[in-house]
Amino acid sequence: MDVSQTIKIDACFSPHLYPVYKDDESIVVIIDVLRATSAICTAFEHGAVKVIPVASIAEAKVYKEKGYKVGAERDGVMVDGFDFGNSPFSYMGENVKDQTIVITTTNGTQAIEAARKAYKVVIGSFINISALCDWLISEKRPVLLLCSGWKNKFNLEDALFAGAVTEILSERSEQIKCGDACLALKYLYQMAKQDPVKFLKHSSHKERLAKLNLKKDIKYCLTPDLSRIIPVLEDEALVSMPVDRLAETSS
Amino acid sequence: MDVSQTIKIDACFSPHLYPVYKDDESIVVIIDVLRATSAICTAFEHGAVKVIPVASIAEAKVYKEKGYKVGAERDGVMVDGFDFGNSPFSYMGENVKDQTIVITTTNGTQAIEAARKAYKVVIGSFINISALCDWLISEKRPVLLLCSGWKNKFNLEDALFAGAVTEILSERSEQIKCGDACLALKYLYQMAKQDPVKFLKHSSHKERLAKLNLKKDIKYCLTPDLSRIIPVLEDEALVSMPVDRLAETSS
Repeated sequence: MDVSQTIKIDACFSPHLYPVYKDDESIVVIIDVLRATSAICTAFEHGAVKVIPVASIAEAKVYKEKGYKVGAERDGVMVDGFDFGNSPFSYMGENVKDQTIVITTTNGTQAIEAARKAYKVVIGSFINISALCDWLISEKRPVLLLCSGWKNKFNLEDALFAGAVTEILSERSEQIKCGDACLALKYLYQMAKQDPVKFLKHSSHKERLAKLNLKKDIKYCLTPDLSRIIPVLEDEALVSMPVDRLAETSS
Repeated sequence: MDVSQTIKIDACFSPHLYPVYKDDESIVVIIDVLRATSAICTAFEHGAVKVIPVASIAEAKVYKEKGYKVGAERDGVMVDGFDFGNSPFSYMGENVKDQTIVITTTNGTQAIEAARKAYKVVIGSFINISALCDWLISEKRPVLLLCSGWKNKFNLEDALFAGAVTEILSERSEQIKCGDACLALKYLYQMAKQDPVKFLKHSSHKERLAKLNLKKDIKYCLTPDLSRIIPVLEDEALVSMPVDRLAETSS
């Protein structure tokens, strides 16, 4: 593609708004920092082969009955009868290594479902932020940062991550052209980046998670660059983006 | 109402998202800074008695045929065959004084339409920001700041205004509890408030308006407190909030 061309980047704050933002050309980055996309990146880093995202508990049950390991979270809590919730720390053990796992969450898997037909759907989190940005820069395609939010409402932590991606891409390329949402998020991230944990302390979701005693999860989910893997949707499942593809694009 | 109770304030970035945010208790503030809500406030300040917002050009035509003065804008331009576009400077003359006027715009009137059934719907702009905030504080009810955006996408100027309202309310009352969107917007406004015109210079809509040679409009629309009137939706039309109601609430 032409190196000189503008790379448009925009952010969508809710899966419910995705139809307004979607186009056939964009790479869609799914963001659910606390905690679904952080958990998915963690699963791949710890050897998962495939992650099948499903939108409903009913679909998750079908997979469970077929013998899959299944993560199911609603309202921040693991659903009874499943193998994982959406704490990243659940996705580090032998039970994910070399496995295909299935996951359904309150927000993140709904966002994946909304964007399923996009040009390409990848998973973003602070865990894999640098690898993600390297790849996005190399692709030279429009980028849509799709924040999962909380039950279709804006949330601060996903916005913060989208702002971080916007800032990194803007610093890396003069061809980046930000939509209004990304302009706003870049400013937000600049205010927050010295201490994101502190910045998020008043956010609705952090309060929600604090009640569930998940401070350790929050700190982990805000830690950058624990992985170089970019999960990408191929047909119905997320897989690790092939290494040759990464090698090709990071040149 | 109980003075000690928390006042929730949140922001919704698109009329398309309104169904996710709506509740039966909130006052909804319609925001379309460039330029519909600024124009509506201007019309009332210049003596308009009633403003009937309609969503479609077809509805506007029906009113036009009945002999009403009608404003109709799409994509920033006045629609042929109508009396006004949505430049505030069109709503200052004898043609609005003591008149009922009808208006349809690309974004603002769509937001009014979306929120029509809310507890109360009022019109916000920098033009009437202090009067609006005084009244919101006195009402002690949850507030939803409904940004009209641009064709259902987030836009920077409406977000900036919502941030300004959030900051003013937060400074005035310790009972204010911000949703995540308002937390983000407050930070945004704090970065922008020294020079909002400069801040908006990269925004998509400002670029759009600049092409239409509307710098004078933009500067006007960012000018605070040109009016103390709060337009409020009563049945199908916006009217000036009764003075006794304001007097009662500003005590």
